Amino acid sequence: MKQLTSFDAFRIGPKHRLADIKPNLKTFKLGGKKEERAQLEVLALELNDLQNRLYAEGQRKVLLVLQGMDTSGKDGTIRWVFSRTSPLGVRVSAFKAPSAQEKARDFLWRCHAVVPAAGELTVWNRSHYEDVLVPVVEGWISKEQTQQRYEHINHFEKLLTDTGTTIVKCMLHISKDEQRNRLQNRLDDPEKNWKFAPEDLTARAKWSDYQQAYDDLLNATSTSYAPWYVIPADDKRQRNLLIAQLLNSTLQRMDMQLPPAAPGLQDVVIE
Amino acid sequence: MKQLTSFDAFRIGPKHRLADIKPNLKTFKLGGKKEERAQLEVLALELNDLQNRLYAEGQRKVLLVLQGMDTSGKDGTIRWVFSRTSPLGVRVSAFKAPSAQEKARDFLWRCHAVVPAAGELTVWNRSHYEDVLVPVVEGWISKEQTQQRYEHINHFEKLLTDTGTTIVKCMLHISKDEQRNRLQNRLDDPEKNWKFAPEDLTARAKWSDYQQAYDDLLNATSTSYAPWYVIPADDKRQRNLLIAQLLNSTLQRMDMQLPPAAPGLQDVVIE
Repeated sequence: MKQLTSFDAFRIGPKHRLADIKPNLKTFKLGGKKEERAQLEVLALELNDLQNRLYAEGQRKVLLVLQGMDTSGKDGTIRWVFSRTSPLGVRVSAFKAPSAQEKARDFLWRCHAVVPAAGELTVWNRSHYEDVLVPVVEGWISKEQTQQRYEHINHFEKLLTDTGTTIVKCMLHISKDEQRNRLQNRLDDPEKNWKFAPEDLTARAKWSDYQQAYDDLLNATSTSYAPWYVIPADDKRQRNLLIAQLLNSTLQRMDMQLPPAAPGLQDVVIE
Repeated sequence: MKQLTSFDAFRIGPKHRLADIKPNLKTFKLGGKKEERAQLEVLALELNDLQNRLYAEGQRKVLLVLQGMDTSGKDGTIRWVFSRTSPLGVRVSAFKAPSAQEKARDFLWRCHAVVPAAGELTVWNRSHYEDVLVPVVEGWISKEQTQQRYEHINHFEKLLTDTGTTIVKCMLHISKDEQRNRLQNRLDDPEKNWKFAPEDLTARAKWSDYQQAYDDLLNATSTSYAPWYVIPADDKRQRNLLIAQLLNSTLQRMDMQLPPAAPGLQDVVIE
């Protein structure tokens, strides 16, 4: 398989806009479904090894942030990319509309409570970035307040990276047409229609406002220490392959080492 | 494969003692490693389906408690039984020696903080039962205090089951000889010897005290609503198969239902 040596094409730089990256881009030409599934299995097994080493080393932390419009595939990404890792070392936190208790604190409070510990890989299914999306689009906060939140986010992520956390942020980028297909599919399939929430159409009705809010946050918070990657997500397997490669290559670069054995181990006798 | 219709043989009843269950018992005669692995894969995939339904239903909770001496295979059980489930709906909490903050509260505080939410399956890798093991064997608490802790534990588990949690408690039962093999293996294997902690030998030196403490807690806390199962654990694959069957049959009996679709769904048009 084509091993991407650089993810720069998907990384949000100063002049990048969401519209520059096609949601239906196919990065990997592997043949068909069978070959793509097989390749994902290879990557998932490799991620399991890497995660074991991260856990064994027990020093550093990895945080994968997943954002995207409804149906963009956050759950599916987690299901497939982590299909071969153990829940022993992978933890998922999902952020929904904040509770009364959460609203009574600053917007980073609930996120800080669930950052990965040493040796852990944590996935955020939605994140603190929700707080610069809905409130912005709905006009609940001003431009100045939004700007202030970006700064708080950057400082928070700097704190985490300075203390041993590698942050990978992925925005799952789907087209409005593909969202229609997926919502229609939920509506039509009796096994899936419990997932359909009429509220999902509210955000869809403000599609371009959300795209703008994403563009603004991506540009304001894609830092050198915690860059954003925009993942073409109209094709589910291509999406999974790209995120799996990005995550694996990030962990490979961390070059985890097994901790040394306790001193004097050669003299130990087990009665 | 032999489907166990009853797990009574492994369930701690009023007159059951740990010594009545052989650590090297082989419940399943499937042939060899290959057949056992294949069967475990079937069970792991089935558990994935069951967990998806638990998540979809979003009402009830499942808590799997794993206890056992060092090297009894708690991590390995999680790795294999949950090899096909997604971290989306399975959460593992590991309990180590309590921190200063945890010691400053009652012994159930840190456990209560991580009980499963509606739709979740949570695994406790060690648990509140550590607080009726080490302190008992080391003589830090009196017989009366120990008895009081058993009662608190039973009340706490009653609270959880009354509010929709199904609790499955498994004690991984290994022999002292098998522990020696496994510790020696950690000592001999350069890839594993970082796992060897000289402190592991401290508990081993008090093996029979720990067996007694287990016997006492098993008898005091194996209730009708949260029974204990003693899992023969000298053979790793047999252990995994038994726990997987126990967990799957528990989830099957819960008979989860998909939630109904939102009313008026047939009239929805996606623009």
